[in-house]
Amino acid sequence: MPNKIPIISVVGKSDVGKTTLLTKLLPEIKRRGYRVATIKHDTHGFDIDRPGKDTWRHAEAGADVVVISSPTKIAIIEKVEAELSLDAIAERIENVDLIITEGYKRGDKPKIEVHRAAVSSELLCTPEELLAVATDEPLPVDVPCYDLDDAAGLVDLIEARFLAPAGRK
Amino acid sequence: MPNKIPIISVVGKSDVGKTTLLTKLLPEIKRRGYRVATIKHDTHGFDIDRPGKDTWRHAEAGADVVVISSPTKIAIIEKVEAELSLDAIAERIENVDLIITEGYKRGDKPKIEVHRAAVSSELLCTPEELLAVATDEPLPVDVPCYDLDDAAGLVDLIEARFLAPAGRK
Repeated sequence: MPNKIPIISVVGKSDVGKTTLLTKLLPEIKRRGYRVATIKHDTHGFDIDRPGKDTWRHAEAGADVVVISSPTKIAIIEKVEAELSLDAIAERIENVDLIITEGYKRGDKPKIEVHRAAVSSELLCTPEELLAVATDEPLPVDVPCYDLDDAAGLVDLIEARFLAPAGRK
Repeated sequence: MPNKIPIISVVGKSDVGKTTLLTKLLPEIKRRGYRVATIKHDTHGFDIDRPGKDTWRHAEAGADVVVISSPTKIAIIEKVEAELSLDAIAERIENVDLIITEGYKRGDKPKIEVHRAAVSSELLCTPEELLAVATDEPLPVDVPCYDLDDAAGLVDLIEARFLAPAGRK
């Protein structure tokens, strides 16, 4: 059994800026030499493949799993009977030091909540669930708070808690 | 170690109808109760994700692996340094009885060549490489030949050689 890959969830209300925070964290994590995976929770059913493409035709014709492989990337699309848990998804991911999810606010992973005063007056999560808050205003909570742009600060925290020193490549 | 999943390659010249043959084989394989994966060889670099989508932003920002999970399917997109071999791809596929590739004519898997008189006067593969030919004209080769529409015949052959009886669910 490989060591378990640490999983952190970036959560927050709709349109608060979860993807934007992720696009700041990811380059900082990469700059420090780690390999990282992201998991996006999609409740609506995504349309990653396109009608008419060969791989779409494979899936339509009954393939349970469709893979596209090129010299630079590989995509594996699999039909599932029920939504997989984060732990089940993590078992399919290899060769990364860290997994960050966008969403999964009801999951049991340590969370970074994204907060903006214009979107909400209160947090989604309880302090016990939170590793940190990324916020544009001071909040009266007993959880480390970071500016929305402070990727270095947030990654320092992630690294100290989940990666360093053994996880460092 | 799980048992190795049998892999068969559907090959043929460009536009001969490889995807079309696959879309006939797949329903017949499913009708017989098997789970099946397909692998499409893409030499150009596919564009399965779309500019501006959250998952595209994750990959652009540096994620080595991006996963999208919904109640009906999961997609895993991974950057690779070099194209993976069919055997390496097969190791990432779980819970299927059979893998069929579209393309991989230079791979070492048993092949079904798709042939149409209007596209070519000769076969791509040598008889030794071929499990069967799906063709619209009689060919003077010492390999089982099937009509392009004879999915049942081709799947009988696949089943006898690679699936029955132990593989049957």
